[in-house]
Amino acid sequence: MSSIARVTTITSRSTVSFEDAVRSGIERANETLRNIEGAWVKDHTVKISDGVITSWQVVLEVTFVLDS
Amino acid sequence: MSSIARVTTITSRSTVSFEDAVRSGIERANETLRNIEGAWVKDHTVKISDGVITSWQVVLEVTFVLDS
Amino acid sequence: MSSIARVTTITSRSTVSFEDAVRSGIERANETLRNIEGAWVKDHTVKISDGVITSWQVVLEVTFVLDS
Amino acid sequence: MSSIARVTTITSRSTVSFEDAVRSGIERANETLRNIEGAWVKDHTVKISDGVITSWQVVLEVTFVLDS
Amino acid sequence: MSSIARVTTITSRSTVSFEDAVRSGIERANETLRNIEGAWVKDHTVKISDGVITSWQVVLEVTFVLDS
Amino acid sequence: MSSIARVTTITSRSTVSFEDAVRSGIERANETLRNIEGAWVKDHTVKISDGVITSWQVVLEVTFVLDS
Amino acid sequence: MSSIARVTTITSRSTVSFEDAVRSGIERANETLRNIEGAWVKDHTVKISDGVITSWQVVLEVTFVLDS
Amino acid sequence: MSSIARVTTITSRSTVSFEDAVRSGIERANETLRNIEGAWVKDHTVKISDGVITSWQVVLEVTFVLDS
Amino acid sequence: MSSIARVTTITSRSTVSFEDAVRSGIERANETLRNIEGAWVKDHTVKISDGVITSWQVVLEVTFVLDS
Amino acid sequence: MSSIARVTTITSRSTVSFEDAVRSGIERANETLRNIEGAWVKDHTVKISDGVITSWQVVLEVTFVLDS
Amino acid sequence: MSSIARVTTITSRSTVSFEDAVRSGIERANETLRNIEGAWVKDHTVKISDGVITSWQVVLEVTFVLDS
Amino acid sequence: MSSIARVTTITSRSTVSFEDAVRSGIERANETLRNIEGAWVKDHTVKISDGVITSWQVVLEVTFVLDS
Repeated sequence: MSSIARVTTITSRSTVSFEDAVRSGIERANETLRNIEGAWVKDHTVKISDGVITSWQVVLEVTFVLDS
Repeated sequence: MSSIARVTTITSRSTVSFEDAVRSGIERANETLRNIEGAWVKDHTVKISDGVITSWQVVLEVTFVLDS
Repeated sequence: MSSIARVTTITSRSTVSFEDAVRSGIERANETLRNIEGAWVKDHTVKISDGVITSWQVVLEVTFVLDS
Repeated sequence: MSSIARVTTITSRSTVSFEDAVRSGIERANETLRNIEGAWVKDHTVKISDGVITSWQVVLEVTFVLDS
Repeated sequence: MSSIARVTTITSRSTVSFEDAVRSGIERANETLRNIEGAWVKDHTVKISDGVITSWQVVLEVTFVLDS
Repeated sequence: MSSIARVTTITSRSTVSFEDAVRSGIERANETLRNIEGAWVKDHTVKISDGVITSWQVVLEVTFVLDS
Repeated sequence: MSSIARVTTITSRSTVSFEDAVRSGIERANETLRNIEGAWVKDHTVKISDGVITSWQVVLEVTFVLDS
Repeated sequence: MSSIARVTTITSRSTVSFEDAVRSGIERANETLRNIEGAWVKDHTVKISDGVITSWQVVLEVTFVLDS
Repeated sequence: MSSIARVTTITSRSTVSFEDAVRSGIERANETLRNIEGAWVKDHTVKISDGVITSWQVVLEVTFVLDS
Repeated sequence: MSSIARVTTITSRSTVSFEDAVRSGIERANETLRNIEGAWVKDHTVKISDGVITSWQVVLEVTFVLDS
Repeated sequence: MSSIARVTTITSRSTVSFEDAVRSGIERANETLRNIEGAWVKDHTVKISDGVITSWQVVLEVTFVLDS
Repeated sequence: MSSIARVTTITSRSTVSFEDAVRSGIERANETLRNIEGAWVKDHTVKISDGVITSWQVVLEVTFVLDS
């Protein structure tokens, strides 16, 4: 017996924190993908304007199981 | 003239061997993707329970040509 | 407030140059993906036949914003 | 004169946040290892169930000085 | 027309959290650099003393636009 | 609630195949480590003598859960 | 006898091509840095708007010799 | 006293399995190179046609001792 | 049935452009190597003198099929 | 027949040189580990105080054979 | 309370040895930078002329604390 | 006008030091290769027997200019 999953890459930004960006990204991915198992936070970046951090951004590699 | 392909990442598990996991992953990908050209085995892992290997898992980067 | 984008990997070949391959890849991606923001040229390769370069190929990681 | 340290790798999960996972991992390592100097957070991942993040996980490379 | 930016690497430590370290690092960089656009968090580490985390440290690659 | 695991690196050689080397490595690790969860095959090498492969060698990163 | 050089990272964008971006970046760097020896093109990216490439961007690691 | 070896890169394809590809590659290398010591399997890929794996391919870094 | 190829690394410089350097490198390699299949452009660098780019240099990993 | 080895990471500092740091690290490891086969010098760093190098530090991945 | 440091990259060559190149690089950096804490030796290369090593070169990532 | 060089990988061992291993490797390479320009020390390892370092080994990527 075998089992197959797919990995997709998303970026997600939040005005609050990196963890809020992870949560938002997973919530948004969950609207279109079924059976999400987990995600790897591949990169953390911030956008800055006038010396102030305006967004906390993460790149996520999201793994979801394919229906058999 | 130009030609375009896409690369998608899947993970595939088998109870038998890494090569069986590669074969299963390609078979399953072939159900939904046309014109698969090849795949790179990006990672090899095993899952273990009570000291015994219960699954052989591969991460595959599958390349398939887009219809023009 | 948050914003989400996806990253997809494509390969594109041109008989002319690497930059033509980038342009063709983006044009083709633009037919099926909305709101493309940018792309990273992950790899440059050439195919050769009888000592002559027959295609210039790039691997692109294309980022596009998801509609909210 | 010379000084020697060892590096060991642990993974730590928390239901709360990445930083709580780092703290838990260090606390647990401190029970068995003396003279911990620091740790590098090598990877950040999340586990997801029914679209909700169920654990925040970090991989830590922990450095501790060996008694002379 | 063209546009040029520079990238500089800083490390920043906080006694509170990784995100506080990012914020402090950007604030300090903003005192001497104009037009900071963003930063990549290249590494996360912690310093530990007597089993307790005494500082949360990040390495940042800060990008700022050069005046033309 | 939190959970902690450790990662240890072993190399294992077999005269038969890479998969036999993985299996031997896990069996040997299981003699001294409790609660092994899985392993990543980090590298595959072969040793050769007189033009013949004399051993198939793998480097494994083995993860095992620490008793609480 | 010894000789010392410094390496600095810049990003440069052009509306024309990657090579124009390299040339612009070097010209701009040459206004403030003496004795530039060479540069490594660390990354190639494109920015896209309405399906059209609006800028070709390179990241350059520029090496210049320090006056003794 | 010192000893010198060279490292050369080959790719080898088999219709049967990755291990058969490793064995074929070493056999072929052995026809022209003396004193092969070992090889690192740097990459595993498969070629696919009509949804079926047609070749198992490895990239090998082969090390052989130079005659003194 | 199996097929074997070798990979060799060359660097090539041109006073004109990166693509001219790739073409020159392939032409020169073609004088001594038979059955070149392709090449990966591993690195792009420029040499600079008096603020002007004097050569465009590429590092190529060239793959060629061995006669059976 | 199979053979198993373990890999452990240590850091070693010397006030004299990198090679002295390697030697010290191996000597210290040899007090607690049997059958050390070799080590990979993963990183070289120096500590500096008042403009003077106060220690030469290496990170070593030490491999030792497990008794059967 | 927080603390900020900067990281700068230099290359240093010596006709004598790698360690002499590290020492020269740190001495030269110390003329213009205050509060240097340490350096990572990122790369070791040699220049050769008529079969003889004419310089030992290192790339250093130097970390120095910014005055508050 | 263009210029072409080749890069070849060798490993060299010495019973004395890493720098002696680099020197030996270059001397040995110089017997068969003309116009060696330089080398990159890609890896440093030691072999150990009975707790004593028996050889200092380097992996070198040697660059030499091809005659035109």
